[in-house]
Amino acid sequence: MRYAVLGTGEVGRTLAGRLVELGYEVTLGSRSKDNPVAVEWATAAGGRAHAGTFADAAGGADVVVNAVGGQVALDALRAAGAEHLDGKVVIDVSNPLDFEEGRPRLDPVESDSVGERIQRAFPLARVVKALNTVNCRVMVDPGRVPGDHVLFVCGADPDAKRQVVELLGEFGWPADRVLDLGGIGSARAMEMLLPLWLGLLQKFGHADFNFEVRRRD
Amino acid sequence: MRYAVLGTGEVGRTLAGRLVELGYEVTLGSRSKDNPVAVEWATAAGGRAHAGTFADAAGGADVVVNAVGGQVALDALRAAGAEHLDGKVVIDVSNPLDFEEGRPRLDPVESDSVGERIQRAFPLARVVKALNTVNCRVMVDPGRVPGDHVLFVCGADPDAKRQVVELLGEFGWPADRVLDLGGIGSARAMEMLLPLWLGLLQKFGHADFNFEVRRRD
Repeated sequence: MRYAVLGTGEVGRTLAGRLVELGYEVTLGSRSKDNPVAVEWATAAGGRAHAGTFADAAGGADVVVNAVGGQVALDALRAAGAEHLDGKVVIDVSNPLDFEEGRPRLDPVESDSVGERIQRAFPLARVVKALNTVNCRVMVDPGRVPGDHVLFVCGADPDAKRQVVELLGEFGWPADRVLDLGGIGSARAMEMLLPLWLGLLQKFGHADFNFEVRRRD
Repeated sequence: MRYAVLGTGEVGRTLAGRLVELGYEVTLGSRSKDNPVAVEWATAAGGRAHAGTFADAAGGADVVVNAVGGQVALDALRAAGAEHLDGKVVIDVSNPLDFEEGRPRLDPVESDSVGERIQRAFPLARVVKALNTVNCRVMVDPGRVPGDHVLFVCGADPDAKRQVVELLGEFGWPADRVLDLGGIGSARAMEMLLPLWLGLLQKFGHADFNFEVRRRD
């Protein structure tokens, strides 16, 4: 399985690094072919790690991970090329955070979501929203947070979700810690968790936390 | 301590009933003096239970609980009378759910919250947002959900929050299960949890669930 990880920020590099550790071929995609962060990452991460444009990354991949910010996700995926997304699992881990007004706010929010926008813009992609509710280090190492805690996933395609749940299992998330919220419309709910997440980050002073859902059986 | 509970829906009646059980004098407030639901509740709930208008309820109370829907909270509190709220703890348990378009949506959302609107409209009230992230039966009986799970509170007034945390303790929520998110601005984050809550309600088919926050110490 070959992965494209779009975005050279901490989230993208962390996910790409873990995928390489798991034995996958990974191309870290960015706007330009010679992005120094991507080239440095690929050099350090070994033979299965590559750097390239968004289109290079997506074109050669079986699965595409959107790890750019939610505000620029559509631009990045357009640069990757719809023809490189068709039929593929696209994992959207982004949050639509906009920092322009000084405090983080969500845009879109409530009446739409980045996950849905991606699915609408690329109707043949099999979009799964996942991982956006935890810090990237927790994404690939759930043991940083003690006890049981959960991830949410949603998306229209059951097979795509199964594939993502398997990958999450390789990251260390057993399937019973993954809650399927249904169709991609639930990306709204997942993205709207961010303000609470940011409040807890401020309260605790670190990002090693996550939500558990307790329930009567 | 005398409580006013504004709103005769399931949330209001459940909270009012529990407060009566705890030994408090409680007036269930509604638009009209002779609201049959309120009168029936008061008759059944015993000598400490009363029914009255929003103004009757708030005027005689030490603490006012807003248990009407978020869409009508300001109207109800205006009817209660600003002079009956000044200096008092006002516990806002509401969510700004609007069902007009067929699916539940939040209004306001993200750039404002019901909690903040109440605080702005009644600057001398000591508004504490609490309890809006669980079903009303769980509010007053956290044991319906197995294991540890949490409530969030926020508000500008530390003494008001302490008083609310004490009341939550009487409901069965130990203080270490209450997470203080800071000022009333965090009501946004608390209200924005609702879409995820509704998604889980749909998934589980019942409302006996809640969130736990796991974290590294």
